[in-house]
Amino acid sequence: MSPNTPDGAETVAEVGEFGLIDRVTRGRPQPRTTLVGPGDDAAVVAAPDGRVVAGTDVLVEGVHFRFDWSSPEQVGRKAVAVNLADIAAMGAVPTAVLVGIACPQTTPASVIEELTAGMWQEAARARVGVVGGDMTESATLVISLTALGDLRGRAPVTRSGARPGDVVAVAGKLGWSAAGLAVLGRGFRSPVSVVGAHRAPEPPYEAGPDAADAGATAMIDVSDGLLADLGHIAAASTVAIDVRSDLVEVHQRLLDVASALGGDPRHWVLTGGEDHALAATFPDPHGVPDGWRVIGTVARGQGVTVDGAVYSGAAGWQHWR
Amino acid sequence: MSPNTPDGAETVAEVGEFGLIDRVTRGRPQPRTTLVGPGDDAAVVAAPDGRVVAGTDVLVEGVHFRFDWSSPEQVGRKAVAVNLADIAAMGAVPTAVLVGIACPQTTPASVIEELTAGMWQEAARARVGVVGGDMTESATLVISLTALGDLRGRAPVTRSGARPGDVVAVAGKLGWSAAGLAVLGRGFRSPVSVVGAHRAPEPPYEAGPDAADAGATAMIDVSDGLLADLGHIAAASTVAIDVRSDLVEVHQRLLDVASALGGDPRHWVLTGGEDHALAATFPDPHGVPDGWRVIGTVARGQGVTVDGAVYSGAAGWQHWR
Repeated sequence: MSPNTPDGAETVAEVGEFGLIDRVTRGRPQPRTTLVGPGDDAAVVAAPDGRVVAGTDVLVEGVHFRFDWSSPEQVGRKAVAVNLADIAAMGAVPTAVLVGIACPQTTPASVIEELTAGMWQEAARARVGVVGGDMTESATLVISLTALGDLRGRAPVTRSGARPGDVVAVAGKLGWSAAGLAVLGRGFRSPVSVVGAHRAPEPPYEAGPDAADAGATAMIDVSDGLLADLGHIAAASTVAIDVRSDLVEVHQRLLDVASALGGDPRHWVLTGGEDHALAATFPDPHGVPDGWRVIGTVARGQGVTVDGAVYSGAAGWQHWR
Repeated sequence: MSPNTPDGAETVAEVGEFGLIDRVTRGRPQPRTTLVGPGDDAAVVAAPDGRVVAGTDVLVEGVHFRFDWSSPEQVGRKAVAVNLADIAAMGAVPTAVLVGIACPQTTPASVIEELTAGMWQEAARARVGVVGGDMTESATLVISLTALGDLRGRAPVTRSGARPGDVVAVAGKLGWSAAGLAVLGRGFRSPVSVVGAHRAPEPPYEAGPDAADAGATAMIDVSDGLLADLGHIAAASTVAIDVRSDLVEVHQRLLDVASALGGDPRHWVLTGGEDHALAATFPDPHGVPDGWRVIGTVARGQGVTVDGAVYSGAAGWQHWR
């Protein structure tokens, strides 16, 4: 593994588990919701709502990220972003993240320090604490994250509440990460806008609670690709979803990249994962909150269509397939 | 990897991520505290206290467990037990666990089904739900767990509250897992009592909240070894801890194993990790609750001694050392 490792760089084995935990936690500020932070058997986090939202993600080097394409800091930012987006997709406000890191003994300590610095950075952007974690040895670098969130009195927005007559809307970028991946796959490093979106997406966390407040009937984090994730809503809600391609914005930057590389920008938007946009259904097209864009409709039936027809490209991503 | 893989066994790649998640979650009961269970972006768990206790652990094949020594089911039980013990060590009652599994594409699906069956089994023993998770691909089998717990109005018991004059007490088995590891290391499979304690420890979850109710001033889960973990309390509390060897019970079974293998049973008790007993300090020796055994005292100073002297064996376990 690992980027630009100078010979003789201090390894995690040399620093030791406890030394490394100290380095990556010492002096880091915690929000008021962190009642007991890192360094004890477990953390204690405020859950004023009386319920806690919790989701976990596992990211693996070579599967979810590559250090020749992303810096450790970018990987850390992305790992936290991916995880917090799941909390937002329930309509909750993220409150905390816990981090597990398993890595080879030979990993430079600086890589773990930069990785966790990226995690702290994204956690700060979302105003949450990194409240606990675990570090251990593994032949493969594996990062596990668990995010917690507070519903602030809202009903959680699941995948199963979409109803015929609802409209479908999205918040956040779509297709940018896929475009960035296409650029990196060709050996380029720019345009920075799309490459950056792949390396460290910035999910619209506030859009989740906003959607819940506006009466969203179902919501999901777009991690597998828009059509695949709308398929999860359609299946869980036992409805059909149709996306209108003329409503799906394809940003000029994506058109530029596609024309340079020869890709299909609309395919990136419809099937690219990892942007961690949010998709939701709303009963009233006029009640869709700021930051959300209507892209389709919900009807009786099943499955997802684009302009009334089954989309012919691959629909999305799942592991071991 | 992997135990007794018949040629042609169905792999996780053949079943697919979503198929496997369905297999390991379908029909599993959830306690009433699970408000939204597996299958959505995140789970929702009751946190009636208004605070949530959360801890995370990462277990790696070949580092924390070996499938030639433990069955997948035993590994699953242990993974959950290890994680829930951290919640108990804060004085909280466990409420939920989230599971991340990263494994090679060639892993037999049956291994993951048995592993998760063991997780459900230990979760049921502790009356908690397996409320969510993530499954993905990795060259190394890595299990990450996050447990949640509820304090039921108690103050959390951290590592930093021990005071001179307190007594030190323990609840649960000590040395049994180390004895089991010694047995397995010599190629034996019995006595089952100690081997079983290594394969799937049964932490005394109730002893944690009991200690909190009895006014415990500090508490820790014994995962690195008794002396090492008391060292964490001593350091966090800025006190000295002395263990009296005549008060430390060495069970007859450990004496039997030691006499057969030639090991030092007291060394297993003082330094063996992985039993996930609890150690705590109490202001009043007469106020130590049932199930707890006094083994030492807290004084001004620093560090941990046995009968007033520094213990000469290795003190415990940390990773990459």
